[in-house]
Amino acid sequence: MRKFTFTEDRMSREVIATLTTLSNGFVSIRGDPEFAESKHGALVSGVYSSTPVFYRELVNLPRAHALYLELEGAPMVPEGVKYTLDIGGGFLEINATLSSPAGRVHYSSRRFVHRVLKGLVGIRASIRSLDASGRLCVKAPVELDTTNPSVPPEVSVKLYRVVSAECRDFPTLDVETADGRYRLRIVSLAKLPGGIGGGFYATSKHVGQAACVDVSPGTSLLVERYAVFSLEPEDALRQAREAASKGFEPLLEEHRELWEREWRELGLSVEGDEDFANALLLNTFHLLQVYNDESEVFILPARGLHGYQYRGHVFWDADIYALPFYLLFKPEAARKMLEYRCKNLDAAVENARRHGYEGAQYPCESADDGFEATPREIPLDLAGQRKLRILTGELEHHITADVAYAVDLYYRFTQDREFLERCGLRILVLTARFWVSRAQWDPARGRYVIRNVIGPDEYHVGVDNNFYTNVMAKHNL
Amino acid sequence: MRKFTFTEDRMSREVIATLTTLSNGFVSIRGDPEFAESKHGALVSGVYSSTPVFYRELVNLPRAHALYLELEGAPMVPEGVKYTLDIGGGFLEINATLSSPAGRVHYSSRRFVHRVLKGLVGIRASIRSLDASGRLCVKAPVELDTTNPSVPPEVSVKLYRVVSAECRDFPTLDVETADGRYRLRIVSLAKLPGGIGGGFYATSKHVGQAACVDVSPGTSLLVERYAVFSLEPEDALRQAREAASKGFEPLLEEHRELWEREWRELGLSVEGDEDFANALLLNTFHLLQVYNDESEVFILPARGLHGYQYRGHVFWDADIYALPFYLLFKPEAARKMLEYRCKNLDAAVENARRHGYEGAQYPCESADDGFEATPREIPLDLAGQRKLRILTGELEHHITADVAYAVDLYYRFTQDREFLERCGLRILVLTARFWVSRAQWDPARGRYVIRNVIGPDEYHVGVDNNFYTNVMAKHNL
Repeated sequence: MRKFTFTEDRMSREVIATLTTLSNGFVSIRGDPEFAESKHGALVSGVYSSTPVFYRELVNLPRAHALYLELEGAPMVPEGVKYTLDIGGGFLEINATLSSPAGRVHYSSRRFVHRVLKGLVGIRASIRSLDASGRLCVKAPVELDTTNPSVPPEVSVKLYRVVSAECRDFPTLDVETADGRYRLRIVSLAKLPGGIGGGFYATSKHVGQAACVDVSPGTSLLVERYAVFSLEPEDALRQAREAASKGFEPLLEEHRELWEREWRELGLSVEGDEDFANALLLNTFHLLQVYNDESEVFILPARGLHGYQYRGHVFWDADIYALPFYLLFKPEAARKMLEYRCKNLDAAVENARRHGYEGAQYPCESADDGFEATPREIPLDLAGQRKLRILTGELEHHITADVAYAVDLYYRFTQDREFLERCGLRILVLTARFWVSRAQWDPARGRYVIRNVIGPDEYHVGVDNNFYTNVMAKHNL
Repeated sequence: MRKFTFTEDRMSREVIATLTTLSNGFVSIRGDPEFAESKHGALVSGVYSSTPVFYRELVNLPRAHALYLELEGAPMVPEGVKYTLDIGGGFLEINATLSSPAGRVHYSSRRFVHRVLKGLVGIRASIRSLDASGRLCVKAPVELDTTNPSVPPEVSVKLYRVVSAECRDFPTLDVETADGRYRLRIVSLAKLPGGIGGGFYATSKHVGQAACVDVSPGTSLLVERYAVFSLEPEDALRQAREAASKGFEPLLEEHRELWEREWRELGLSVEGDEDFANALLLNTFHLLQVYNDESEVFILPARGLHGYQYRGHVFWDADIYALPFYLLFKPEAARKMLEYRCKNLDAAVENARRHGYEGAQYPCESADDGFEATPREIPLDLAGQRKLRILTGELEHHITADVAYAVDLYYRFTQDREFLERCGLRILVLTARFWVSRAQWDPARGRYVIRNVIGPDEYHVGVDNNFYTNVMAKHNL
């Protein structure tokens, strides 16, 4: 299977970090190097909070996988970072030279977001002094100052608070979302020079561990760094203990084998144009890794679990574009995407009622609770004097037919009567009722019309009888 | 002159930091210890930016006076911090024990915000190992991740951006406010173990210097830390060079002498109740230190330069409560407060026009540009679903008469015809014209009335003929 290599001379770190995101569908870590400051902590699927402008959004959780080097007190900063994403084994390799006034080291790490231990992020770094001399300290903090970027870009929002932080066997934190709806335990674990444990510290922004060694040119050291995220406190500690006892290599091996089996079972082989094959395989990797087979519901945001764009909201793209992929390769994942629509069917009924319609109207964008999450307006300047009015939440109605289409497609493909009877039929009937109330009789034409919508292009506002919307509504009915 | 001692067992650090703020009326630093993480950078008088909700506010600039200790890689965190504010000498002393897994040190520092070099913040720390053993690193960063707290409290806004950052003789940064209206140079300077200069580093969040020494119980070291803020790039470098060549003790001596002379010339002696005397002297100190005699205009925000509450906005309290103090002790400062009203008279004329009145209407709250800066509403929850409507900006009209009252008081006290002719009379006439257009003839009563105002208590909204407002308006007319 292929490897993808990215360097910062050709792409911005932000873009590379998106393309090299690792996820197991539960926890997700962007590809930002652990040794450099970053605003990006972790995302956990389904963990949303109330937020300004965007209703609810995925929470940028603490950054629990940072690993900083400081030589003689000065942070070591990277030169020439090279990222190699091994999609066959599901891991990321990062190579760089780190420098400071007292010299340079070569840094090489591998990281995974584990496929069995679903809360576990693991990193092993191999560090070798090139011309670095002096005291080299390694810090493994959990950074508690991560925030969600908002609009305008000067604004950020902290969407979690620390409920408790202590260092028992490991630095252990309980955090809850700003709206109090979710609580997570985060356990940090580092095997630093001098062994596991010890060197604990806690400041207002960080909780972590540190250790130092004297280095001179040629000295090398190995560091392991783990972070565990779990919605269940005991489960977090269990995973941390298991990671500590297994160690990095066996964990990576287990993870790789599962990825290799995944690709074998997928049986995907692409021939012909190399660029096309690369794009297809890279995207397949990202689609595969955001699915968590242990979850009952598969929430697939428009930008995956790869960043904050679109705020972790689910759009019609999920049902129309992404679902067929899963239907073909992982029908169970397609069903779980529809379970998301089932779970939020009551919210869709309420949504229809709020807008004066019958049946169930799925919101244009939704988060964890299934209500309309499209911003009504977005401030364009700091003082909020100019605002961009957004009408898709009010007018882009085709999503309701798209969900029905996806249910129908799923059933025709799988013949899954259990799902149909438990939920699918209800979706089909309630969405059809929405269209009955949404369409109007036009006596001049002697037919029904659907006026004032935004179609899937999203560039034309207030269209009457948009082709796509009407075709899908008709299919729904 | 008195010293005030504060400890964190009796007051929160936030409150102590306000009470121990040091300022010279140009730059201002809250009392947060330099060795502990803090959200508070520096405020510079007059440096405001556009901001959400509050129109414009004082910018929380980079924190250029931090001084962190790390022992064997772990941040040293304080226990039992004691703050001693010497108002006679205008400096703050901080004593604490700092601890980390590898031992403790005693930390003692003095700081000033210099009375001659108006951009200069200076700190000298004396550090002695109690039982600390190992490599002790001292870091003197300029922290570039300071933001302004906003509402709701989860929201923060970064109101400056770094235009350039380099390490020449010293780490030197140019920053500009988010709205591009002001540009500042910040120079950081540290005399660390191993001498001045060297150990420079720059990450995305920090630019600074670091140096390390081996310590064992009994080892002691001295560190000096300076930060210079200036609106003029060359002036910043000049002040930094002067600070570097003079050194801490002579600078502090010069600063103390000026403060001692200030108190002597003030000739204030308080007898009787000790608590009353303390409160009076402490407040006198804060009123004295926020006045910059080199500035042409004295902007006195409701909370001084001591924090973000009320966003650095100027209210009627300045003219009615604070101005008489300055009139008595520093008539020049009182005049410069009125220069702020002069400078913004055109904005007050525009403000009256916007509201459909004649003459000049001073806004209830104003920032640097003199326009209405009172928020119309404040979000009470994260999603902005509940909002607090604020009507003072629309209805608390007495400020216009208060400004006129202050002009009159100033003239009667000083007989300053130059000011009266240049500006004072224009204020008196234009504010009077406002009241002419604001008052209405009530035929039933056969007299003029002023309906629908908020009086100075701010608890009663939409009052007709508020006593204070009417008396002041009458005086104005």
